[in-house]
Amino acid sequence: MMETAHATREMSKFVRNAWYVGAWADEVAEGGMMSRVLLGEAVLFYRTPAGKVAALEDRCCHRGLPLSRGQVRGDCVQCGYHGLVFDRQGRCVHVPGQERIPPAARVRAFPVEERDGMIWIWMGEPSLADPAKIVSQLFSESAEWTFLKDRYSVAANYQLITDNLMDLTHVGYVHTRTIGGTPEAHSEAETRTVNTESGGVLVERWMLDSIPPPSYTAVHRFGTPRVDRWMQIEFFAPSVVRIHTGAMDTGKGAREGNRDGALLFWGFNAQTPETERTTHYFWSGARNRVAGDSSSDTRLDSLRVTFAEDKEIVEAQQRSLDRKSQPLVMIASDSGLARARRQVEGLLAAEGERQEP
Amino acid sequence: MMETAHATREMSKFVRNAWYVGAWADEVAEGGMMSRVLLGEAVLFYRTPAGKVAALEDRCCHRGLPLSRGQVRGDCVQCGYHGLVFDRQGRCVHVPGQERIPPAARVRAFPVEERDGMIWIWMGEPSLADPAKIVSQLFSESAEWTFLKDRYSVAANYQLITDNLMDLTHVGYVHTRTIGGTPEAHSEAETRTVNTESGGVLVERWMLDSIPPPSYTAVHRFGTPRVDRWMQIEFFAPSVVRIHTGAMDTGKGAREGNRDGALLFWGFNAQTPETERTTHYFWSGARNRVAGDSSSDTRLDSLRVTFAEDKEIVEAQQRSLDRKSQPLVMIASDSGLARARRQVEGLLAAEGERQEP
Amino acid sequence: MMETAHATREMSKFVRNAWYVGAWADEVAEGGMMSRVLLGEAVLFYRTPAGKVAALEDRCCHRGLPLSRGQVRGDCVQCGYHGLVFDRQGRCVHVPGQERIPPAARVRAFPVEERDGMIWIWMGEPSLADPAKIVSQLFSESAEWTFLKDRYSVAANYQLITDNLMDLTHVGYVHTRTIGGTPEAHSEAETRTVNTESGGVLVERWMLDSIPPPSYTAVHRFGTPRVDRWMQIEFFAPSVVRIHTGAMDTGKGAREGNRDGALLFWGFNAQTPETERTTHYFWSGARNRVAGDSSSDTRLDSLRVTFAEDKEIVEAQQRSLDRKSQPLVMIASDSGLARARRQVEGLLAAEGERQEP
Repeated sequence: MMETAHATREMSKFVRNAWYVGAWADEVAEGGMMSRVLLGEAVLFYRTPAGKVAALEDRCCHRGLPLSRGQVRGDCVQCGYHGLVFDRQGRCVHVPGQERIPPAARVRAFPVEERDGMIWIWMGEPSLADPAKIVSQLFSESAEWTFLKDRYSVAANYQLITDNLMDLTHVGYVHTRTIGGTPEAHSEAETRTVNTESGGVLVERWMLDSIPPPSYTAVHRFGTPRVDRWMQIEFFAPSVVRIHTGAMDTGKGAREGNRDGALLFWGFNAQTPETERTTHYFWSGARNRVAGDSSSDTRLDSLRVTFAEDKEIVEAQQRSLDRKSQPLVMIASDSGLARARRQVEGLLAAEGERQEP
Repeated sequence: MMETAHATREMSKFVRNAWYVGAWADEVAEGGMMSRVLLGEAVLFYRTPAGKVAALEDRCCHRGLPLSRGQVRGDCVQCGYHGLVFDRQGRCVHVPGQERIPPAARVRAFPVEERDGMIWIWMGEPSLADPAKIVSQLFSESAEWTFLKDRYSVAANYQLITDNLMDLTHVGYVHTRTIGGTPEAHSEAETRTVNTESGGVLVERWMLDSIPPPSYTAVHRFGTPRVDRWMQIEFFAPSVVRIHTGAMDTGKGAREGNRDGALLFWGFNAQTPETERTTHYFWSGARNRVAGDSSSDTRLDSLRVTFAEDKEIVEAQQRSLDRKSQPLVMIASDSGLARARRQVEGLLAAEGERQEP
Repeated sequence: MMETAHATREMSKFVRNAWYVGAWADEVAEGGMMSRVLLGEAVLFYRTPAGKVAALEDRCCHRGLPLSRGQVRGDCVQCGYHGLVFDRQGRCVHVPGQERIPPAARVRAFPVEERDGMIWIWMGEPSLADPAKIVSQLFSESAEWTFLKDRYSVAANYQLITDNLMDLTHVGYVHTRTIGGTPEAHSEAETRTVNTESGGVLVERWMLDSIPPPSYTAVHRFGTPRVDRWMQIEFFAPSVVRIHTGAMDTGKGAREGNRDGALLFWGFNAQTPETERTTHYFWSGARNRVAGDSSSDTRLDSLRVTFAEDKEIVEAQQRSLDRKSQPLVMIASDSGLARARRQVEGLLAAEGERQEP
C-alpha cells in the first residue's frame, strides 16, 4: 500500500534497446513510404519494389528536409529538395552536380524485422538487435481465427496503456457498454501475479464453475450451463501485452490444460511511444472458430469501442497527471502494473549504466 | 501619474483565502456533476440527490483519473476507472476487492456555500472560511426585478476585467453600439473614489440635472425632462464588482437618498480566475419594475453584447501584454483600478507572510 | 564541404538596422489601419486621409490595448479603449478628461518609406535609416511588363526562404509540376558565385546554345531553334532576393550584353521575419511584353503554385530542424546560400558590437 510518484517521473525517458512495433506491415506498400514519429524521432519507413522494408532517420543530412518528401528509387530513397540519394543503410550514394560525396553525408538507419504482419524496429544500439527477442503475435487471420486489428493514436504516455491492461478490474467500470458486466465479480476473482522468465509479468485469474456472460453464449455453444473461465495477461517489457482469455465446460479439466471445445480469445497490444505524451497503440484480437460457433462475433467488433473507451480514459488521466504531479495511492489490484513498471525501471537503469563510462 | 509594471507581475498568483463564485447554482443538477478549473486547480462540483452541493479535487488519488468521469452515488462519488468511492469530505470509503482502505486514500475537499443562486467556493485554508464574508448579489429574478445572468469564458487575467469595470470612461469608446453615447460626458462627470470599510473600493459619479439617454427614456417614464443620474462601482477584493446606476426626476433629492420613481440598475460581476490567463466571468444584471415602465428592456438584453465587447477588448489586451511587458502609463481615470490592484497586492502579501515561517 | 550548425542558431535574432518590406502599399487604404507582427513586434500601419503612411508600435502606452482596435483621426490614431490620441511620431496629444498629458505617454514610431508599391519599414535605430539603401523592385505593372504579386504567410524562419532562392538546383526536384523539367541540367549549368559591392551575393549561371524549355517557346517567338539562357540571383542582406532570368537567339551576343528580342523575367522576393519561425513572404514576378509574344503567360500565373510548393518545403524543413538540431552537411550548390548566411552573420555581429559599450 505504498505511495509512488512514478506516473510523471517515468514519462521522461524510453527504453531504447528493445524491439517496438513501428507499423502494421500493410501500412507500407511496395515502392511506398511512410513517416512516423517513434520514441521522439522522425522515422521514414519505405519498401523497395522488391518488397524489402527499410527504416531511416526521416531527415536529409543536407538541409534537413524530411526524406519522406522524396521518392523511392529502387533500393534507395531520393530527397525531394536537391536530389541526394541514400541507400537502405543510410549512406549517401549520389549528390547531383558533383562527383565527390562528403564523408559526413549519411543518415541514421534502424534495424527492422517484418513478423506476423508487423514491422518491428530497434532504435537503440544496432549491434544489440537480436530478432529472437521479438514477441510473437501467435495468431492472425486464418480459417481457425476470426481476426481484427487497428492502430489508435493515443494522447497519453505508453505506460498508462500498459497500466490499463495490467489491471482488468477496470473492465466493470470503464466498459459498461461492452464487455463490462458485474464489476465486483472481476475484483473478487482468484488472481495470481508472477514475474516471468523472459523478464515480464504474468497476471492469471480463474473463475471456476461460473455462469458464462451473455457475450460468450451468444457466439459459442457450451455443453454445460456453467463454465470454467480463465484470463492470462502477459507483459513483455518494455511495452507489449498479450491477453488470453477463454471458457469451457466446467469440470473438464480446464485448469489442468484441457481445451476441448473451449472458446478462446487472444489479444495483442503494442504501445509504442511516439512522444512522452503520445502513443501509437497497435492492437489486435482473435477468436477461435469451432463447430457450433455463431458465424458472427459482435464481441470482436466491439473491440473498437472497448479500446476507444480505454483511449478516452488514459487521455483524461494523462491531462490530469500533467496538471498536478502529486503521489498516487496504490491498491491491491495494482500488483501487476507495479511489477511491470519496476521492470521498465530496471531496463532504463541498465541503459543508464551502459551509457555512462 | 506614476508608471507601473503591475499588469504582468501580478498575474502570477492568486489570493487563495477568499470566497470565489465557482458556478451558478443551476449548473449543478441534483445527482449531477460538473468539472471546472478554478485558480489553476481542477474542481469537481456535485450535488447529492438530496440537494447538497460538494466540491472535491477532480483527481482520483489512485490513478489520477478525474472523478468527474465517474458517478454520484448517494452522498458520495465513485471513480469511473477502478470504482473507488469518496464522500463529501474527500475520504475514500470503499475500494473494490479489498477490505482495508489505505490511510492516504483521500482527495482534497473545498468548503462551499450556496447563496443567491450561486455556488461559492473557498480554495485556501479551510479553517479560515467564514461564510459571513460572502458578497451578496442583492437582487434576483422576481416581481420587482427584471433579471439576466450568464458566464463568459474570457481568455484574459481576471484583473483585466476588474480594471475594465473600475474605469467606466471606456464605455464611450468600447460600447459605441450599445450603452456608449457621448464619450467626453463620461470623462467629465463628477467622480469620487474612496476605500471602503470592507477593504474594497467605491467609485461614485454624479451627473445632476442632465438629459437622460434614449436607452433610459425608452424603458422608463420620468416626470421631468432632465434627470439626476448616479453611478456607484463597488469593488470587493479580490474579484467581485457590484455596479449600481440609476436616474430620477431632477430636483427631488436623489443625492440625499430619495429614490421615489427612480429607474434602478444593478450589476453583479464575479471574475473567478481559471488560470493566470483565463477567467470565468460570472455576471448578472437587473432593472427595477415600476408603474409606467416599458414592458420590455432592450438595455438588459444588450448586456450580452456589452460584455462580449468587453471580453474582446480584455482578450486583445492580454495578448498584447503577453507579447511585451513594458511599464504602462497611468491617467486620472485609473484611480479606481489602481486602488483595487493595491488591495489585491495587500492580500497577496498577507498570504505570503502567512505561508512563510 | 564543411559542416555547419547555422540553421538553428541563427534563427534567434534579427538584423534590426535594415529596411524590410512591411506591406504592399495597397494593403493600407486611406484612413485605414492594418496590424502586422514584424521582427517579433506588433506594428500598426495606418494611412491618413491625405495619403501619408505611418507605423507605430501597436500597443497603447496606457493599458496595452493594440491601437489597431481604435480609429484613424486625421493625422492621428485614437485608442479604442479610453480614447487616448497619438500622432504620427507616436506622441500622445490628447487624454480624455484631463488637461495634462503625462510625459511618458508615447508609443514607438518607426521610419517608413513608400516605394515601388511597397511600404518599407526600419525597425532599428531611427537615425541610421537611410532611404537610399532601399532595394528597388525594378519593374511593376505597365505596358512593358506583365506583373503579378502576393504575400504568403510562411511557417518557417526567413533564412530558409533565402536558402531556397539562392540554390535553384531545387527547381528540378521541388517544382516538377511547374517550372521543373530536367533536374541534372540545372545542376550542371556553368555557375559563378561572387560577393557584390553592395554587401550582397550574386549567383550567375549561363546555358549557352541550349534547347529552350516548352514554357519559353509557349510565350515567346525566338528566331533560332537554340537559345542562350541566363539566370542571375542577387541577394541583398539581410532578406531580399532579386532574380533575373532570360533567353535570346543564340549567337547574338547575349553574354556580352545584347538583349534584342530577348525574353526577360524578373522576380522580387522580400522575406520579412514575423517571428523566429514565421515569415511574411512578399513576392512579385514580371515578364517583358514584346512583339510576337503570346498574349497570355501561364508561367507567370504558375508562380502562385511554384511559391506554394516552396512554402510547403521550407515549412516541412522548419519542423524537421525544430525537432532535431544536429549539424547539416554542405554540398557544392550551397555556395550562394553559405555566402548569404555569412553576410547576415556579419550584420548581426556588427549590431552586437554596436549595442555593447
